[in-house]
Amino acid sequence: MSYIAPIAKLVEQFRRLPGIGPKSATRLAYHVLKMDKNQAAALAEAIVEAKEKVGYCSVCFDLTDSDPCQICRAEGRDRSVVCVVEDPKDVTAMERTREFRGLYHVLHGALSPLEGVGPDDIRIKELLGRVGQGVQEVIMATNPDVEGEATAMYIAKLLKPLGVKVTRIAHGLPVGGDLEYADEVTLAKALENRREI
Amino acid sequence: MSYIAPIAKLVEQFRRLPGIGPKSATRLAYHVLKMDKNQAAALAEAIVEAKEKVGYCSVCFDLTDSDPCQICRAEGRDRSVVCVVEDPKDVTAMERTREFRGLYHVLHGALSPLEGVGPDDIRIKELLGRVGQGVQEVIMATNPDVEGEATAMYIAKLLKPLGVKVTRIAHGLPVGGDLEYADEVTLAKALENRREI
Repeated sequence: MSYIAPIAKLVEQFRRLPGIGPKSATRLAYHVLKMDKNQAAALAEAIVEAKEKVGYCSVCFDLTDSDPCQICRAEGRDRSVVCVVEDPKDVTAMERTREFRGLYHVLHGALSPLEGVGPDDIRIKELLGRVGQGVQEVIMATNPDVEGEATAMYIAKLLKPLGVKVTRIAHGLPVGGDLEYADEVTLAKALENRREI
Repeated sequence: MSYIAPIAKLVEQFRRLPGIGPKSATRLAYHVLKMDKNQAAALAEAIVEAKEKVGYCSVCFDLTDSDPCQICRAEGRDRSVVCVVEDPKDVTAMERTREFRGLYHVLHGALSPLEGVGPDDIRIKELLGRVGQGVQEVIMATNPDVEGEATAMYIAKLLKPLGVKVTRIAHGLPVGGDLEYADEVTLAKALENRREI
């Protein structure tokens, strides 16, 4: 026996989501069938609504339901500093620190020749366009992996001739981490970037 | 910063699903935002449709989009044997074996005094009602845990006076398992239920 059609369809839909295998998809589908009707409708509606209302900010390319987004519009944010990240999720991560009061620029990816992602496939051109407008520092906060590093270096090279300061977020040991379990590359970076206390 | 409203709503909805924590919910929400609009609509529709079309079979209480369900209606299934399971998921698991050709009865739970689930909270009465109709054997296929065992014993006691054979699925080592890693209760059961070969 396979599932009856509406259940099979729902399982199939859940399976397409990231990190959801066949077992999880089945569990989710059966859970939906157990939910009361209003709850299920609320879930379906949230999906449709998010898709309808959320677009990209025309300035920073973060996800937003208004254009420009609330960060780009906000008074009291420092318009002279732009933090460049790969993904909208990274903006949320940065905001969670409550330390950064500048603006963002979301690249929507990182350079990756192996996966065929070149400079024109991510929002580099748009970043260069923003730099004229009173920006004094661009913080490269791409991921600390090969693609992220390469992207940071590539963009830094393009930006420097424009007379803007380009910085890279620090590498080092995670707070609360354990020296014993740190990989040697991170540890070497942490040693190299040591500061006087 | 918290998420913008439509994203926050979607994350919240995903968080209510079983096995989905805050991180997974966020990942799913961002994935939905990346999907093309038709895909997102298909997911939302599958949820609403499953909820609308799927109900319980009035005979066996399995999930179904027709009443009686396709198993209860099927010709060529052995109507003298009823396999009692806790959950609709268990019907799917049994069907996957392709070994059982009888009918099912879904209890929708197991007796659990601690959680306040008594005999009237699961479909025991309906099972007793079915036993008159030519049923010769009832196979108790509730889970091999404390609640499942208690439920099987309780139902067996009710059924025996009605002159029906009541059986319990076997306990033993899982096929492909390893003796070394079997817990002692399972191993003891496997020994006790040994068969001549």
